Amino acid sequence: MSHILTVSGSPRQQSRSAKLLDHVAADLAVAGHRIEHLRILDLPAEPLQHGDVSDPRIADAEARLDRADGVVIATPVYKAAYTGLLKSWLDLLPQYALQGKTVLPLATGGSMAHALALDYALRPVLQSMGARHVVQGFLVVDRFIESDGPDGVTTITGDALPGLTEVVDGFCRALAQDAVRLSA
Amino acid sequence: MSHILTVSGSPRQQSRSAKLLDHVAADLAVAGHRIEHLRILDLPAEPLQHGDVSDPRIADAEARLDRADGVVIATPVYKAAYTGLLKSWLDLLPQYALQGKTVLPLATGGSMAHALALDYALRPVLQSMGARHVVQGFLVVDRFIESDGPDGVTTITGDALPGLTEVVDGFCRALAQDAVRLSA
Amino acid sequence: MSHILTVSGSPRQQSRSAKLLDHVAADLAVAGHRIEHLRILDLPAEPLQHGDVSDPRIADAEARLDRADGVVIATPVYKAAYTGLLKSWLDLLPQYALQGKTVLPLATGGSMAHALALDYALRPVLQSMGARHVVQGFLVVDRFIESDGPDGVTTITGDALPGLTEVVDGFCRALAQDAVRLSA
Amino acid sequence: MSHILTVSGSPRQQSRSAKLLDHVAADLAVAGHRIEHLRILDLPAEPLQHGDVSDPRIADAEARLDRADGVVIATPVYKAAYTGLLKSWLDLLPQYALQGKTVLPLATGGSMAHALALDYALRPVLQSMGARHVVQGFLVVDRFIESDGPDGVTTITGDALPGLTEVVDGFCRALAQDAVRLSA
Repeated sequence: MSHILTVSGSPRQQSRSAKLLDHVAADLAVAGHRIEHLRILDLPAEPLQHGDVSDPRIADAEARLDRADGVVIATPVYKAAYTGLLKSWLDLLPQYALQGKTVLPLATGGSMAHALALDYALRPVLQSMGARHVVQGFLVVDRFIESDGPDGVTTITGDALPGLTEVVDGFCRALAQDAVRLSA
Repeated sequence: MSHILTVSGSPRQQSRSAKLLDHVAADLAVAGHRIEHLRILDLPAEPLQHGDVSDPRIADAEARLDRADGVVIATPVYKAAYTGLLKSWLDLLPQYALQGKTVLPLATGGSMAHALALDYALRPVLQSMGARHVVQGFLVVDRFIESDGPDGVTTITGDALPGLTEVVDGFCRALAQDAVRLSA
Repeated sequence: MSHILTVSGSPRQQSRSAKLLDHVAADLAVAGHRIEHLRILDLPAEPLQHGDVSDPRIADAEARLDRADGVVIATPVYKAAYTGLLKSWLDLLPQYALQGKTVLPLATGGSMAHALALDYALRPVLQSMGARHVVQGFLVVDRFIESDGPDGVTTITGDALPGLTEVVDGFCRALAQDAVRLSA
Repeated sequence: MSHILTVSGSPRQQSRSAKLLDHVAADLAVAGHRIEHLRILDLPAEPLQHGDVSDPRIADAEARLDRADGVVIATPVYKAAYTGLLKSWLDLLPQYALQGKTVLPLATGGSMAHALALDYALRPVLQSMGARHVVQGFLVVDRFIESDGPDGVTTITGDALPGLTEVVDGFCRALAQDAVRLSA
């Protein structure tokens, strides 16, 4: 079983990206993986903005990333790309902080017109950080993310569920392959 | 004469991007333009991170952008793209905050290997914000930015000066053309 | 009045991109511009593929580009980007073949999920060729392009028309501004 | 052992991309893999340009791709992106022609200024074709590719060799992991 960190890049307290991560994390937990959550919004703004890695909460977030075999990153698409909040966190990590890790990139957006932001904007950044394997990602259109309250269960509806399931399965396969290598 | 806002996207107090902007701003001032400066680093971290546009300093920065005919944006290249700090500011602006404006994108980086980040990463974001004209941009390699002290004069050396001069000239021509339209 | 070249990048004889260009060209002609058409598909395959610029039809196409003040380029989106056919033609042009020119990038595709291909894939290529001004582009979803026969009149329907009209207007304004500069 | 197809996207008979592929293929053959070569330049221009998949040589090239577990793609960087010739071939393949395959993207170029073309231009296209794993790629600067004659041995010199070796190793590891899965 793998150790997985989910990373939410939304600057909003109530965010569809975070709900999407909850949904994916529940599936990954059922599959036996150990899950940790990171909301970048919960990190202290000042050290995050100034790249101050001496702050203990910033250091702790990096340590949690270090421990993870796999990372699920979700961001809303703002202005045709990932959020600045997500990028601010990636910026203060070491250049090769994703080395050896398997990464699943997810996005949320108002329409499918944002779909290519994952592969043209976020993926090159993740590659530059040395990720072992950035698997196929997926954009879930906002209206397909339903929730029964702030802390409630999230449901992915409509056309989005098969696509999401497919990339989560691909992520799990990639993690399993990597585990084989590690134990070999 | 045009009203120009320079925007520095570096998270560091001493930054080559900011020095590069000083150099460009001095040239633009000599050409008769009125210049204002914005260091995103000087904006309050908490409201910037949370997208809180009710903060007066955040609102003031947007007002300064509104007044500008032209914008010069400079960012270091981190992880193959613009900084998260710069994107955090762009994220909290209205979707079409660059409508009607002429934009010169500049970058700094350790080597020419980062050159395409301007056109592949930053330019699509600026286009999505409705910019009238994002002129040809330029990446200045760090070692070509020399300064005689924190508040001193910045010199652009070596092979970087002709390329920089060319894009600044292109920016001035685009501003002048737009001024003709406005006065017609 | 400006001299405009329309460039169709579809590898298919019957293509929505070509029909879209016909529609735009008709509007530009009404506005008084002189229009020439280039279908890359009509260029000889062998010299195009091998970059043989000594072929007279290849040389003629380049001469027509040279004469143009403005270029309207339309491509279907294949595999998340412009067609190889279009790029093959761009590849055999001089590096700065678009210098001094105003360019309107258009695309067609099965759904809005392809929208960002224009700004993330085609635009960086056009910038690298020294274009003076690549104005805001637009993707027209296939089902909004209607035609009453192979040589018939093309109609742009539904939500696509306002967006298309807006970018064509922006292209005309950019051409007019450039004409002012040239005559000044 | 895996079945690997090398794909050369250069439109030139004598190309550094093809030589780079020869070098990589020799290493992969020593490691026990079975190698096939495809120079897109050798495919018939007319059917390639028109997307005519009924041509037997076009069909044969697709069949060779189908048989491959891994694909090494090399392209010179022209106008900030892959060649049109390479894209023309990718365009006429089925949308998910890379499904289940491991892909190593390589590029050649006059300077490191082209480096990001791999991740920002080629990688999104490969992802859109359903590739199982597009491993970290590498750009080799032209001057580091030396050859003792048209059919001679190719040497990768200078700073390029460690980087190239690293991505070839990563490709082999990814292939091996996939083989484990297939045999499990």
